[in-house]
Amino acid sequence: MNEASRLRALRRAMSAQQIEALLITHLPDVRYLCGFTGSNAALGLTARKAVVFTDGRYTAQAHEETKAARVSIPEHPHTALGEACALLESSIPKKTRAFYDPAHTTVSALAAMRAALGPGRRRGFFGPLKQPLVSELRMVKDPDELDRVVAAAALGNHLFHAILPHVQPGIPEAEIAASLEFFARSMGAEAMSFETIVASGPRSALPHGRATSRKTPRNGFVTLDFGVILKGYCSDMTRTVCIGKAGRSERSAYDAVLEAQQAAVAAVRPGVTCGEVDEAARSVLRKAGLDEYFTHSTGHGVGLEIHEPPRIAREQKQELKPGMVVTIEPGVYMPGRFGIRIEDMVVVTEKGPKVLTPVTKALVEL
Amino acid sequence: MNEASRLRALRRAMSAQQIEALLITHLPDVRYLCGFTGSNAALGLTARKAVVFTDGRYTAQAHEETKAARVSIPEHPHTALGEACALLESSIPKKTRAFYDPAHTTVSALAAMRAALGPGRRRGFFGPLKQPLVSELRMVKDPDELDRVVAAAALGNHLFHAILPHVQPGIPEAEIAASLEFFARSMGAEAMSFETIVASGPRSALPHGRATSRKTPRNGFVTLDFGVILKGYCSDMTRTVCIGKAGRSERSAYDAVLEAQQAAVAAVRPGVTCGEVDEAARSVLRKAGLDEYFTHSTGHGVGLEIHEPPRIAREQKQELKPGMVVTIEPGVYMPGRFGIRIEDMVVVTEKGPKVLTPVTKALVEL
Repeated sequence: MNEASRLRALRRAMSAQQIEALLITHLPDVRYLCGFTGSNAALGLTARKAVVFTDGRYTAQAHEETKAARVSIPEHPHTALGEACALLESSIPKKTRAFYDPAHTTVSALAAMRAALGPGRRRGFFGPLKQPLVSELRMVKDPDELDRVVAAAALGNHLFHAILPHVQPGIPEAEIAASLEFFARSMGAEAMSFETIVASGPRSALPHGRATSRKTPRNGFVTLDFGVILKGYCSDMTRTVCIGKAGRSERSAYDAVLEAQQAAVAAVRPGVTCGEVDEAARSVLRKAGLDEYFTHSTGHGVGLEIHEPPRIAREQKQELKPGMVVTIEPGVYMPGRFGIRIEDMVVVTEKGPKVLTPVTKALVEL
Repeated sequence: MNEASRLRALRRAMSAQQIEALLITHLPDVRYLCGFTGSNAALGLTARKAVVFTDGRYTAQAHEETKAARVSIPEHPHTALGEACALLESSIPKKTRAFYDPAHTTVSALAAMRAALGPGRRRGFFGPLKQPLVSELRMVKDPDELDRVVAAAALGNHLFHAILPHVQPGIPEAEIAASLEFFARSMGAEAMSFETIVASGPRSALPHGRATSRKTPRNGFVTLDFGVILKGYCSDMTRTVCIGKAGRSERSAYDAVLEAQQAAVAAVRPGVTCGEVDEAARSVLRKAGLDEYFTHSTGHGVGLEIHEPPRIAREQKQELKPGMVVTIEPGVYMPGRFGIRIEDMVVVTEKGPKVLTPVTKALVEL
């Protein structure tokens, strides 16, 4: 039972930091720790107790899904958070504190958490976690998670091959996206992991160009950036293909992005910092005189969330560890002209990078 | 220019409450006020200034989309929030404060906002809004928004008719969802507004039953709950249909849910509280002895977000006003047996309810 071993790992981390009680409300964290996937959940955790609170919409589902924790459905539908707080209050000795995740707790939620406590304990009972304990666990995927990530990425690979024949001149971007998403669903995806990007011609210069009603050009780049969710885990990949022949400047920019992407993939291994991986991509583009057109970071972790730690970005000190799964996705965007991005999902292994999206990165000219 | 008039309305509300500076980071609020749709944005607002800060991924898009505000792309990619705070600090007199939305600001973000200020001003510069000013404006849709909501709902109606022939015995729920989403995309939807629910047979008793690989039964209910996003605005509707003939208890439960739903729709008019609308549905189910199986609230506002204020729930004092758009969606869920939910989108008008999803609610037996 994975959830039980994740809870054990979290309790070890809590114990090491002398944390007696922890409130978990970030939904992917709740799912990771106890399996419950509802949209309203608060997980109260001590050394001995693990109780997930939700509401009446989820009575059957919560009992079916939840492992390694008890389920509680408060009588009043909007008190899951408050009851989790009350549980923690009653479960730990006086004068001890409970902790919460400040990165996923709003100022209003904190006020509601405090209001749920007995009057004597409101001040000082809740403290912000100094380290994001659950995020840190989630960065390193366990074998069950790796299986799911590999399966999600494999579905992405199939999708790329399925959609390629549909990338033709004069097709609305949204129609390409619709077909891609239909194939994804038909192949078993629960959902897309983010809004599918189909950005063609000059729109490929928009790093986040959503699919629009604009038709693909007779000649030019089309950037396809898409991902699925399979058993809760996200995939993410990008390929930029060319309708017709690429011009000279397009091809040289493509070659530079590809070289940068391969350099960053090659840099992925345990002990290397995320900043060093970012720099591996950036320095190639710098030599090509294109770094000013690379306007985002090189990648991000991916798992239950499409964007999760670590960030593969400038000056990030986080070291890579075996079991981390990251995207490597440098790009170059020439405003009003064209853009190129190439993205793989990569698992960090003891032996180095293992690419989960081994679809050709040679320039495809359709 | 809608954005300009929304900003004017917000500034009037700020002025009435003697608020000199406001930081807006909730992305739907940013979009509402200035049109920008990127995933990283902080809008700094004073009586004279309106500046949206984002990052290099969105340079072209931000300039293209943003109305009624200036665009600023900070040099360092992750400082949009900090620069917005610095702008507010430098724009208002000493000893005045700036306000933020505590419901959409995490404890960590608040710390980052404070860290961006000059050392002398960190303490006490930012105060939480007492009233959710932008949410309150957004509850009442302006004519342009109503046009978009009507168009999104109309697309939902077409989708229901398009999917009905595909609801047959022995089809995986996920395949029905895939077809529905393909039709949605093909008809121009930018995306689905939430994960499509196709819950068949005993799974219809799960209020949030995602589409799974389970096949529809030869005889039993199928709940279809889906919505699209069109020009940024969400639709949301639910119909429960029956494959084969409904049994006696199924039909009597269906009739009770339908009566409850119609009673709540009929209760929608200016000046009525959300709690009264909820009670209109709940009391019908109480008389039928089914209220304990109605395990959620009656509805919610819908607009740029699929769930937004007001909440149509027990004891909610918020009064309905002309221009609000809400869902009315009571349901009954018999664990392990079947479930029924019927949902319309309704605009509050001076004359009463205007239903945007006038698709038949008589029991469809397929």
